[in-house]
Amino acid sequence: MSDERPIGVFDSGIGGVTVLRALRNHLPQESFVYLGDTARLPYGTKSSATVVTYAIQAARALVRRNVKMLVVACNTASSVALGPLEAALAPLPVIGVVGPGAAAGNAACRNGHIAVIATEGTVQGGAYSRALHALRPELRISQIACTLFVALAEEGWIDGPVMEGAARRYLDPLFTDRADAPDTLVLGCTHFPALAPALGRLLGPRVSLVDSAETTALAVADALRAHGLQAGDQSRGAVRFLVSDSPGRFIRVGPVFLGETIPAEQVETLDL
Amino acid sequence: MSDERPIGVFDSGIGGVTVLRALRNHLPQESFVYLGDTARLPYGTKSSATVVTYAIQAARALVRRNVKMLVVACNTASSVALGPLEAALAPLPVIGVVGPGAAAGNAACRNGHIAVIATEGTVQGGAYSRALHALRPELRISQIACTLFVALAEEGWIDGPVMEGAARRYLDPLFTDRADAPDTLVLGCTHFPALAPALGRLLGPRVSLVDSAETTALAVADALRAHGLQAGDQSRGAVRFLVSDSPGRFIRVGPVFLGETIPAEQVETLDL
Repeated sequence: MSDERPIGVFDSGIGGVTVLRALRNHLPQESFVYLGDTARLPYGTKSSATVVTYAIQAARALVRRNVKMLVVACNTASSVALGPLEAALAPLPVIGVVGPGAAAGNAACRNGHIAVIATEGTVQGGAYSRALHALRPELRISQIACTLFVALAEEGWIDGPVMEGAARRYLDPLFTDRADAPDTLVLGCTHFPALAPALGRLLGPRVSLVDSAETTALAVADALRAHGLQAGDQSRGAVRFLVSDSPGRFIRVGPVFLGETIPAEQVETLDL
Repeated sequence: MSDERPIGVFDSGIGGVTVLRALRNHLPQESFVYLGDTARLPYGTKSSATVVTYAIQAARALVRRNVKMLVVACNTASSVALGPLEAALAPLPVIGVVGPGAAAGNAACRNGHIAVIATEGTVQGGAYSRALHALRPELRISQIACTLFVALAEEGWIDGPVMEGAARRYLDPLFTDRADAPDTLVLGCTHFPALAPALGRLLGPRVSLVDSAETTALAVADALRAHGLQAGDQSRGAVRFLVSDSPGRFIRVGPVFLGETIPAEQVETLDL
């Protein structure tokens, strides 16, 4: 028995293709429909109520494409809209990136102090704190909203003095000359893996950087098995992209995060 | 004869209150309804087609509030949607910021070379080039999309090493050690006046910075006279704010651009 329906991957825009990339590596037999709400991005500065409304609209568009599971690649939507999405789409399995990211962060943290960098919306939603404390109640958690990192990643300024200056301004108060500094930094936004090399140089080898894309892919593999939804050998990695704005910018910026070009014929515009 | 209906001011979000501020200074007898499409901001990275759709939806919401004129405070919407807005709302007078900004830039430019900094959408729309060339066909125009400046202004990082590093990266190739550098810099985004002090220090006194808010207010005053739409003495500066996202962030960040606090009871949420 196999289920050849695609897995739906939803993101506020472009960054979520880092999660798609990990999913394709770990699950080469599956096919995917990726929906980026590029007309209304970013979600990270919007209120929870608006993010919930937009996320449910986007998820319903994926359900109409007959997906067998929803992966919420956007950290902000995972942080504030996961419960409402599960309720709206039941019994469809819904998997966010916050739970897997928190589990990976907790596993990496040795000194009991963990830092989470994310958007304003994710920090205010508090989902990382809740998920981490559910795993280890005594954990000390420092969250920092790093709004500018999103623009830096999209501009491709992932290195050099501007990126370094922004990173110092956000992170120095927590990390510099402090014996009790965190030993783990969770990258709580799909854009931030692009900045990982610069962050690693700045923070040094004592600090582990944790990206939720890999652990999310493992969680999706588990859920496919648990629900008996694994694909056979027919669709093998096929991907369709749906975007709510015209596809020009998506096709141009997406490869920075996906690591390969996005052919125009795979991208379709839809109204949300 | 006087017309007590309010003037509608439309922006993609928060930055347009710099234009509202100039309008209130120049037209103290008028009342205003300001609509910020905060749920869907920013417009500067979206395609023209999406900006046109969103701008017309927002303008219609203002027409339902019985406005006598529409001021498009957003440079991106002024650059790509002014014609469609005029067509959709005729005979309502519609005034954008690009025409007045171009006129002010042209008046300031002595050496025949002018720079325009703006969002991606405004630069690609090309409205500043068209407006400037209509005024002085031989003008040399250098446009630079300064995407990161929007995030810097919203983060309040209007000074210091990150702002300076970003400004150098965007502007040095055009301005440093070049005898033919522009002598005028048009701030083609409502967020950029917040960065003017830092830009002024970087570029020095040889370069004039031009902000379209003041000249737009003068253009609106002219249009009110021309159409016989001036208010009498009843409404005097009353302002209502409409926002498409919940008002929390607008009330918090808005005062940076407006120069005064925004009372919560003046702000209303509407669905667009």
